[in-house]
Amino acid sequence: MAVNFQNIRIVLVQTSHPGNIGSAARAMKNMCLENLYLVAPKYFPDPSGKSKAMAAGADDILAKAQIFETLDDALAGCAYVVGASARLRSIPWPVIDPRECVLQLTDIAQTDQVALVFGREDRGLTNEELERCNALVHIPGNSDYMSLNISAAVQVLAYEIHMLSYLQGDKPDRLVEFYDHPRATADEVEGLYDHFESALTTMGFHDPDNPRQLMRRIRRLFNRVGLDKMELNILRGILTAAEKGKGIKSNKA
Amino acid sequence: MAVNFQNIRIVLVQTSHPGNIGSAARAMKNMCLENLYLVAPKYFPDPSGKSKAMAAGADDILAKAQIFETLDDALAGCAYVVGASARLRSIPWPVIDPRECVLQLTDIAQTDQVALVFGREDRGLTNEELERCNALVHIPGNSDYMSLNISAAVQVLAYEIHMLSYLQGDKPDRLVEFYDHPRATADEVEGLYDHFESALTTMGFHDPDNPRQLMRRIRRLFNRVGLDKMELNILRGILTAAEKGKGIKSNKA
Repeated sequence: MAVNFQNIRIVLVQTSHPGNIGSAARAMKNMCLENLYLVAPKYFPDPSGKSKAMAAGADDILAKAQIFETLDDALAGCAYVVGASARLRSIPWPVIDPRECVLQLTDIAQTDQVALVFGREDRGLTNEELERCNALVHIPGNSDYMSLNISAAVQVLAYEIHMLSYLQGDKPDRLVEFYDHPRATADEVEGLYDHFESALTTMGFHDPDNPRQLMRRIRRLFNRVGLDKMELNILRGILTAAEKGKGIKSNKA
Repeated sequence: MAVNFQNIRIVLVQTSHPGNIGSAARAMKNMCLENLYLVAPKYFPDPSGKSKAMAAGADDILAKAQIFETLDDALAGCAYVVGASARLRSIPWPVIDPRECVLQLTDIAQTDQVALVFGREDRGLTNEELERCNALVHIPGNSDYMSLNISAAVQVLAYEIHMLSYLQGDKPDRLVEFYDHPRATADEVEGLYDHFESALTTMGFHDPDNPRQLMRRIRRLFNRVGLDKMELNILRGILTAAEKGKGIKSNKA
């Protein structure tokens, strides 16, 4: 089931620095989130242009950002609301980690609007605002130093949402078609090992009467790596050249 | 098995903006990573103080950052190297996603030094640099707009490392001791449902001869939520008050 990105709102409450609004928009757009809801931002739209500068091309997200006076207005129509909480509060409210948060959020977003709420740079969300949330999400980290700025927190949660989408179905079988030549087949690889054994014997590197672990180690290496036909041909070429070199040396000796 | 954060290096290649070095340090420290290796940074240490400003308290990471002339120098001693690659390259190299990357990286970091390498702001890593890597990691995202800055990429991968540590063993049973009162027991909850039924009957809201789904729906709601003793007492208090209210009205009628 694909993630319904359209049903997910990112809500920023009373953001002081327009640059943070811009970098949050950038983080969102990188991960396919588009709905930015701003509650009483201190400076936005900002004549300074800082939000646009930090958005780095995510201007469309800023342009269609919606501005509200209160958090309740921004949450209207949402069936599930999660607040991002940097500190673990004294107020006992259900706290979940980002992965669990995203499972719940995207499940409900299949059919309903949901919101992820981020608080002020300096003071986060008030208790009154936290009480609007069905759950709080806490990003695990360094307990001695936790200083995620808003855009970093948006980035982590937006990434988790996109990663779920990727793992659930948008994941290509392979990120890159790695093999640009067909894989070598088992019989071709056996031919290579025969060639190794004879060449190494010719070169005096291998003694079939006292083989120790040599051929096993060579098999282990090349079986693990998964050769393609081009690589196999290169190795056979090297072995052939090595055999000849030995021949020349032998002739000279 | 705990993640060995000490064995993980974050390597930034030819970073142009010292602010990005600072925000990468901040992202690292938030997630318990400490080893910052800089390859030929354009301005660092920077008299401008931008790196320190963006580090927001992660000054210790900057102070002990090591500077190298070449990538090879920075990778000396590493048993496993992963390059962060924003673009999917034409050069066929094994590409993994962040979750798989972190599994491999932390596994090898149990015993050996490993490195995560991030390229220049504008041009990433060169093909020569990519060829130093055992694998490339690609952060999935919006294929029409992928514009993660360095610190956002460091943040995502550092978060994945910390999240693995958290899920593998540092995860507390509960992030917050949610219940500040003991949970209500089954018999207490049954007592509540009896009270609901009698009170709603008294109030004329419930007809025991034609119950429909009312009591089942009430059970479903309060069983799902998991009441504590305090909440149960509040509900019983409300029911008692409601019964009395009905009585007063009846007296008046």
